Amino acid sequence: MNGPHLSRGSKQPSPPPKGKLRLYSNRFCPYSQRVILVLDAKKIAYDVVNINLYSKPDWYYDKSPYGKVPALEVENGDVIYESLIIADYLDDRYHAHQLHNKDPLQKAKDRLLIEQFNRVVNTMYRVLTNVGRIGLDDDEAIANGLSTFERELANRGSQFFGGNKPGMLDLMIWPWCERADILKIFGNQNLLKKEKYAKLMDWSQRMSEESVVRRSMMDSITHVRYLQSYRAGMPDYDMILNASD
Amino acid sequence: MNGPHLSRGSKQPSPPPKGKLRLYSNRFCPYSQRVILVLDAKKIAYDVVNINLYSKPDWYYDKSPYGKVPALEVENGDVIYESLIIADYLDDRYHAHQLHNKDPLQKAKDRLLIEQFNRVVNTMYRVLTNVGRIGLDDDEAIANGLSTFERELANRGSQFFGGNKPGMLDLMIWPWCERADILKIFGNQNLLKKEKYAKLMDWSQRMSEESVVRRSMMDSITHVRYLQSYRAGMPDYDMILNASD
Repeated sequence: MNGPHLSRGSKQPSPPPKGKLRLYSNRFCPYSQRVILVLDAKKIAYDVVNINLYSKPDWYYDKSPYGKVPALEVENGDVIYESLIIADYLDDRYHAHQLHNKDPLQKAKDRLLIEQFNRVVNTMYRVLTNVGRIGLDDDEAIANGLSTFERELANRGSQFFGGNKPGMLDLMIWPWCERADILKIFGNQNLLKKEKYAKLMDWSQRMSEESVVRRSMMDSITHVRYLQSYRAGMPDYDMILNASD
Repeated sequence: MNGPHLSRGSKQPSPPPKGKLRLYSNRFCPYSQRVILVLDAKKIAYDVVNINLYSKPDWYYDKSPYGKVPALEVENGDVIYESLIIADYLDDRYHAHQLHNKDPLQKAKDRLLIEQFNRVVNTMYRVLTNVGRIGLDDDEAIANGLSTFERELANRGSQFFGGNKPGMLDLMIWPWCERADILKIFGNQNLLKKEKYAKLMDWSQRMSEESVVRRSMMDSITHVRYLQSYRAGMPDYDMILNASD
């Protein structure tokens, strides 16, 4: 998954080996990470082609109509995109290691929480990539957003949102939780107070110890270095090229 | 479904009769209509409580946390919202009259098309409610959006997107197609040319003849009268009060 990011002018890679799905991805894209987490949690065979989002290969638009990542190429060559639709597809198609709750009502509630988490996602994106300092409204949006999940963990009384192991909700919100620490650098140092989010922080610690999560996880220093390159207008996608694959 | 719209100060209605779901709705809300279409297509028993969106009852926020419609109250009193999540929940929970394609890949592709239709939805909303005349960009957004669906119908070669009867994709885009004619009044008269959207118009005609669709369908005159009241700042939700129920 740490292969080079293909750019404009690159040659289109040959099709994936038989029996493997292909994920078009970007090493620093949290939406791509969602799909990697699902593929890894469900132990589905796949290879990864990383895309330089700053200079996309021309051939990539034949794969993903809007040039977006993640995009998943399935056995018959069809490509689907949108992280949540890919994640649901994989859970529908591959029954082993079911990630959505089997109860349709609980599944619907978890999907609502994933939608609701978008407020945190959108604010974090603004804070981490575009805006120098976090504003008061941004603080509030992130704090309120996270409080919902703190309460939810308390209500569920389980190790993970999904029970005794990470489920779909855990995996869909994780990429931004992995990056939450760096809000202290780019945002407000007082935002993520241990006493206010005790359960969420314990959850985060447990998540970071899961082998499925560790596979794609990056440390805060790497995230910060990447964001600095992004903010400077030259995102260094290949920063950890072949570092662990 | 044409009952009065409850307003601020109204008494909270008693729980739904045993064995019935309750839909909190608004007679002119296309998102609510999506859920009504799913409930009717799946022949699920439900009653409707209409909500005045201009003056929402205080008690309604205990049902739907953001006061949004549609919201569905299920057997145990839990409430879920977001039209697409409710629709998927109903199809997951009630297996009779399956609306999503059974093939996970086709289901994912249909979900992508539903997402893509949002461009049409958002532009139509602006044109119909806020902006006096349709702009050039709006024209293009709607025309491009609809062209995708025209091509898709041609590729599928079936009566409906769902095959020989309406499926989830048909029902999720229908409420805006029902309102497409009135773009000629509030928007650009030349936008929906029969020759450019021949298949889509035949589809629309077939949809309007389906009994499931007819149940909640309103004619263009009613839509126009409602929109005129909305634009005047006094949406007349009760316009067709008890007209057909």
